[in-house]
Amino acid sequence: MINESAPAIHDMKECKSHLQPVRDSLDILNGKWKIPIIVSLMFGKKRFKEIQREIDGITAKMLSKELKELELNQLVKRTVYDSSPVTVEYAITTYGLSLKKVIDELRNWGTKHRNRLMKKNGIEIEA
Amino acid sequence: MINESAPAIHDMKECKSHLQPVRDSLDILNGKWKIPIIVSLMFGKKRFKEIQREIDGITAKMLSKELKELELNQLVKRTVYDSSPVTVEYAITTYGLSLKKVIDELRNWGTKHRNRLMKKNGIEIEA
Repeated sequence: MINESAPAIHDMKECKSHLQPVRDSLDILNGKWKIPIIVSLMFGKKRFKEIQREIDGITAKMLSKELKELELNQLVKRTVYDSSPVTVEYAITTYGLSLKKVIDELRNWGTKHRNRLMKKNGIEIEA
Repeated sequence: MINESAPAIHDMKECKSHLQPVRDSLDILNGKWKIPIIVSLMFGKKRFKEIQREIDGITAKMLSKELKELELNQLVKRTVYDSSPVTVEYAITTYGLSLKKVIDELRNWGTKHRNRLMKKNGIEIEA
């Protein structure tokens, strides 16, 4: 049954301190596009249009905004080549590569989630 | 230097199929609140107000919306107790617990990110 007393302050503190680094990550990786952009660049350096072609549904405006934020957080590096016409290339940084484990776990979970959805059809909640 | 030829179609296919499960996860966990709510419930069953107290900055409206979506995806279970007044309790499901590894990696990365920010002050990008 329900505990009607006040919430345990110790647990709440513990929960909050547990939450902080998770929220720090989410602040950096916010939105639905940053992680897909990072995955795309993990496959190699790319130009703007190449990234856009790989990430279905992203608009040029969004991609531009997200790349700027990723660059600001040093996860992505932008290089301008003095060719004619000027070309711009985006690459993942060593720091960006440190997100690999996070992305691997998201991929694992996403795969399991899809399998589960396909198996379950009208079967009741399991907990 | 830059590869001026068309993007390798094989790589693009590989990248896209690699991306899909990651995007599936992000679709379910979208926004800045769902993962914090799940973390909060990993610490035990809670009532609405208790969750709200633990997650700084979330409004009642947002929490209500997010809990509904989490319930729909069977990550959270809502139980109504026929007490007087009626009480409602939220709990994580077994399926919700399957997000533990994702959350652990987000926590690890967030901790490293914060340490890095504190160490670096004006030091150049590393890649």
